[in-house]
Amino acid sequence: MMDLAQRVAEAADLVTVALDELLPRADGPESRLTEAMRYAALGQGKRLRTFFALETGRMFDLDETSVLRSACALECIHAYSLVHDDLPCMDDDDMRRGQPTVHVAYDEMTAVLAGDALQAAAFEILAHPDTHPDGNIRSELISRLAVAAGARGMVGGQMIDMLGVREDLGGVARMQRLKTGALIACAFELPLVLARAMDAERSALMAFAHDLGLAYQIVDDLLDAEGDAGTMGKAAGKDAGAGKTTFVTLLGVDAAKERLGLLKTQTKSHLDPFGARAEFLRASVDFVLERRQ
Amino acid sequence: MMDLAQRVAEAADLVTVALDELLPRADGPESRLTEAMRYAALGQGKRLRTFFALETGRMFDLDETSVLRSACALECIHAYSLVHDDLPCMDDDDMRRGQPTVHVAYDEMTAVLAGDALQAAAFEILAHPDTHPDGNIRSELISRLAVAAGARGMVGGQMIDMLGVREDLGGVARMQRLKTGALIACAFELPLVLARAMDAERSALMAFAHDLGLAYQIVDDLLDAEGDAGTMGKAAGKDAGAGKTTFVTLLGVDAAKERLGLLKTQTKSHLDPFGARAEFLRASVDFVLERRQ
Repeated sequence: MMDLAQRVAEAADLVTVALDELLPRADGPESRLTEAMRYAALGQGKRLRTFFALETGRMFDLDETSVLRSACALECIHAYSLVHDDLPCMDDDDMRRGQPTVHVAYDEMTAVLAGDALQAAAFEILAHPDTHPDGNIRSELISRLAVAAGARGMVGGQMIDMLGVREDLGGVARMQRLKTGALIACAFELPLVLARAMDAERSALMAFAHDLGLAYQIVDDLLDAEGDAGTMGKAAGKDAGAGKTTFVTLLGVDAAKERLGLLKTQTKSHLDPFGARAEFLRASVDFVLERRQ
Repeated sequence: MMDLAQRVAEAADLVTVALDELLPRADGPESRLTEAMRYAALGQGKRLRTFFALETGRMFDLDETSVLRSACALECIHAYSLVHDDLPCMDDDDMRRGQPTVHVAYDEMTAVLAGDALQAAAFEILAHPDTHPDGNIRSELISRLAVAAGARGMVGGQMIDMLGVREDLGGVARMQRLKTGALIACAFELPLVLARAMDAERSALMAFAHDLGLAYQIVDDLLDAEGDAGTMGKAAGKDAGAGKTTFVTLLGVDAAKERLGLLKTQTKSHLDPFGARAEFLRASVDFVLERRQ
């Protein structure tokens, strides 16, 4: 079996090259905007959503261009959300992945606009006939992404997170499911739309995405509680300092780790129906969750 | 002929009722977000884009639901752009249409997120099969709106406006064409897509939209130079005070008015090929441009 780390890295390279091609360039004074969009979207991200989308595409033998363009759209939404989340009026983060955030490297106004334009770019990419010859499929991709990115998905979750109103595990889990889970699920959902997959396959992968997203959030919370800024490329201990309720502040480190262990086993079990076709996705669970720990 | 003011008001009512139906509601803590979205999108706007879209739809005998949903998507983009433009890091406006702006009525974070979610809602509305049974048509609508709203359209224009780098009439005209012209053009472009209109009809209406958008901007600049805050519902004299280059600061009031007069005649002439079918659009030129003067 090909090295998983290499496979993840290759997926990241593929989407970065494709995004570089797809994102607008400008000669006029608005070049500041297109440069900031590129700074946000072409940086050194882990590109996990892309990896998941490409692996799912391979499982269903899908056209690589269709899947890659879907992944590009996902990455545009993800990148825009990070730019806006980092703003002074939100998380107020100066660093992201070891680099100055967009409003630090440029300014606040440019960061707001670059995020806005990246969101529009995501839907422009999906709507283009190169994504899929069938317009009904393209519209379905757009519909899924728009719901996942909007008030009933990512932005709704960010609102809950910012208000800090969650008090129990159910509230934290719901916030996570909306804020990060919806877009992670899209990494599987968009290829499933392209594959015109059956309900059973869809349900299995959605359950996988759901548990993986939850596990990923617990890892993130653990890293925040235990990690150091050097490894994470951003400030550590920020959640507790900000009085944020997370899986770790509610459960404690030990119980959170135990829950994570159980969740890993459960996550992988959702792939059983796919047998050997899911070997890379199955192997990626440990790989993704054990990063930096 | 039915009173034009009444026709414009009816279009505004139609789209407000439809948006009220289409925009998400929430019971959870994210209700703050959905309330802010509604505050931004259901307020007392002129809804000119909706009026133009509905009139164009009638000219081509289009299904009213298709046109109205397209207008709703346009209004979501327009509303989000105003929310973000009003932010302290942009125009820093406290009032809009005589009401507190979203970041004043709520807070900055909520304003950023409500704008983001309104943009997603626009594409979700267009992608839904209720907008048109043919997915290729829906994708084409989305593509046009995404381009008009993105870096090569509205957001690019806003970047240029914020940077204040335009020095001559060409620069001001280009900024206007991107910042406000692209979305005004969409009010005609989306119905043209729905109508599968011929190139000649498309060109004529695009020329109409282009000149109308330009004329509208000159009126806006004149109002800013001459108007008072009471009539406009926002601060007057802001452009000159901010050292902004506009049609009026470049041409002077008299020459700007003269240019506006010529432009009105030219704008209407683009409707000649449509004959009596365009009577309301033709009449709307004076109505729209003479508002509040």
